[in-house]
Amino acid sequence: MTAGDPASYRALRSARATHTLDVIDQRALPHAVRMVTIADADTAARAIRDMWIRGAPLIGAVAAFGLSLALQRDPSDVGLDAACRMLLATRPTAVNLRWALERVRGVVQALPPDERADAAWSQAERIVAEDIAINEAIGHAGLAVLRGIAAERGRVNVMTHCNAGALATCGWGTATAPLYLAHAERLPLHVLVSETRPRLQGANLTAWEMAQRRIPYTLLVDSASGLLMQRGEVDLVIVGADRVARNGDVCNKIGTYDKALAAHDNGVPFYVGLPSPTIDWTLASGRDIPIEARGDDEVLTVAGRDERDEAHVVAVAPAGARAINYAFDVTPARLVTGLVTERGIAGTAAALAQLFHRTSPCT
Amino acid sequence: MTAGDPASYRALRSARATHTLDVIDQRALPHAVRMVTIADADTAARAIRDMWIRGAPLIGAVAAFGLSLALQRDPSDVGLDAACRMLLATRPTAVNLRWALERVRGVVQALPPDERADAAWSQAERIVAEDIAINEAIGHAGLAVLRGIAAERGRVNVMTHCNAGALATCGWGTATAPLYLAHAERLPLHVLVSETRPRLQGANLTAWEMAQRRIPYTLLVDSASGLLMQRGEVDLVIVGADRVARNGDVCNKIGTYDKALAAHDNGVPFYVGLPSPTIDWTLASGRDIPIEARGDDEVLTVAGRDERDEAHVVAVAPAGARAINYAFDVTPARLVTGLVTERGIAGTAAALAQLFHRTSPCT
Repeated sequence: MTAGDPASYRALRSARATHTLDVIDQRALPHAVRMVTIADADTAARAIRDMWIRGAPLIGAVAAFGLSLALQRDPSDVGLDAACRMLLATRPTAVNLRWALERVRGVVQALPPDERADAAWSQAERIVAEDIAINEAIGHAGLAVLRGIAAERGRVNVMTHCNAGALATCGWGTATAPLYLAHAERLPLHVLVSETRPRLQGANLTAWEMAQRRIPYTLLVDSASGLLMQRGEVDLVIVGADRVARNGDVCNKIGTYDKALAAHDNGVPFYVGLPSPTIDWTLASGRDIPIEARGDDEVLTVAGRDERDEAHVVAVAPAGARAINYAFDVTPARLVTGLVTERGIAGTAAALAQLFHRTSPCT
Repeated sequence: MTAGDPASYRALRSARATHTLDVIDQRALPHAVRMVTIADADTAARAIRDMWIRGAPLIGAVAAFGLSLALQRDPSDVGLDAACRMLLATRPTAVNLRWALERVRGVVQALPPDERADAAWSQAERIVAEDIAINEAIGHAGLAVLRGIAAERGRVNVMTHCNAGALATCGWGTATAPLYLAHAERLPLHVLVSETRPRLQGANLTAWEMAQRRIPYTLLVDSASGLLMQRGEVDLVIVGADRVARNGDVCNKIGTYDKALAAHDNGVPFYVGLPSPTIDWTLASGRDIPIEARGDDEVLTVAGRDERDEAHVVAVAPAGARAINYAFDVTPARLVTGLVTERGIAGTAAALAQLFHRTSPCT
């Protein structure tokens, strides 16, 4: 855990001198790397809500900086409250958002108003540094599993879903950190990237990350997972998480549950890359996690570029069609082989509680 | 089984006087209803191979007419052989193609060459008429199930995948016939249409059929099936089939297996609309069914229309990306609640064999 993520890109760069954040506008990927600068809390909230940036850990970090930006304008108790509320309302599912805001608030609310913005910025920077270290530790824990598969099979075909990559975090990525470390030590890695309709984060973001790092990968439609597992073409599945309940139920991108079922039916190990801020110790079970429902235009249309590199949003359904668009689902703990955390891999909810010195989830 | 399918469209219309077929070019749906005329066997083969038309029963019917068209040019034994081979090579998975060609060949090869084309045309017409009757019978068998659900729950939320509709057959559709009959008798039906990447037959074709018949429906991305079943929003799944082995394993559009797993995990009944020509009695198990692999451009791009109704094909992956694109998967018989045939519903392979007076699949 010494060298940093060797990626040539960072989803987020903060500049204390100017009190600004530069983020990759992920809506333009994989066709263009477009940077946007965030200089106020409203823009930070918009970046989260409209998904210029996404990914549970990155949402948390951007929200933390957003809170600092809000406090620069109004550091009063009222201002602190209002900013927390506004930022918390941007997206409902990822618990890292609440976690980061509560952490920053916990530090600054005891301070005199004129010190709050600065202290919040420092805390946000700390969240970023910790997230990078957490992801690298997750990488090393997961790497051990990949080494074992490589030794046994002479190949490591890893399926992933959505983007729990460097673009979803402050560096490395929760699901991808083990892959990046495995690739660095030349394990025979091949990544099967599930495209992840409706927003295609697999095709748009994870594929782009793989291409950036020259890792061999193949795209697939989401519903091809079952067949590929039936055919023995998948050695392991690893995904990220947006919130994990204390019983080990995993809320993650829509389609994760379907993949976990297919993995279970075919004896394929199913792992979740899981930084501890994604664990919601207050929730007994995944059934209590609020699932974000988004606009149906995401299902009814697809965005991409034509042969002349011109951007288009095309309708794929009849005029007047309606769609249902839940962004996440919940994978029951019984389908999860291991929760890969910065403190090691937990195979059960009890083991997870033990890793983090929590009361057993059964009590 | 008296009234015909009340649809205002037919996937296929044959004209004996001109020896031509008019088919809906399904690549233009749902944005436009474009008809194409097929007047020779090469065009019939191209229509199947390039998916102007698709769906196992419809492929069989078009191939049968294609064989007649070939025999008009060359009715010799050599010509018959060559035409069968060419048409059979168009697509590998649906067994109806082989079934229809063998049926026509079986009738015509005993005839003098100058009678063959005409006899083949008659046989093709008979295949069409039978397919319509088969689908209507499947409809009545399935309707009984839907009535039961409606009586019990006061609603019938049916999920389907791909298009096993009127557009996949000569009329009614294998999975949709029960829905059309249910709608005609005003059961409280709502259809959940899985979009079916990569070619989006759900969004493009099934949604269009529902809209044509004014049946309430909602589109979803393929990987939302699990969540919707977890939430209790699905009362029943019904899909079509491209080939069923005699042990009851069902080969159907990629993603069917994933849906069957989700249905099984949530206690949702999973039915397959299955005309008998789709049963391959020569195959012991679904493992022996050849799975068609198609070009990766279907995964890497999406076709649709922009706001000005202009057609575009847009790339959704980074330049240079590769994809895997199997068109079908195999759902093990253990996950199937019932095979809905023209002779009734079979819950097991043994029951299926009995319905069609075949030797038990266990022998």
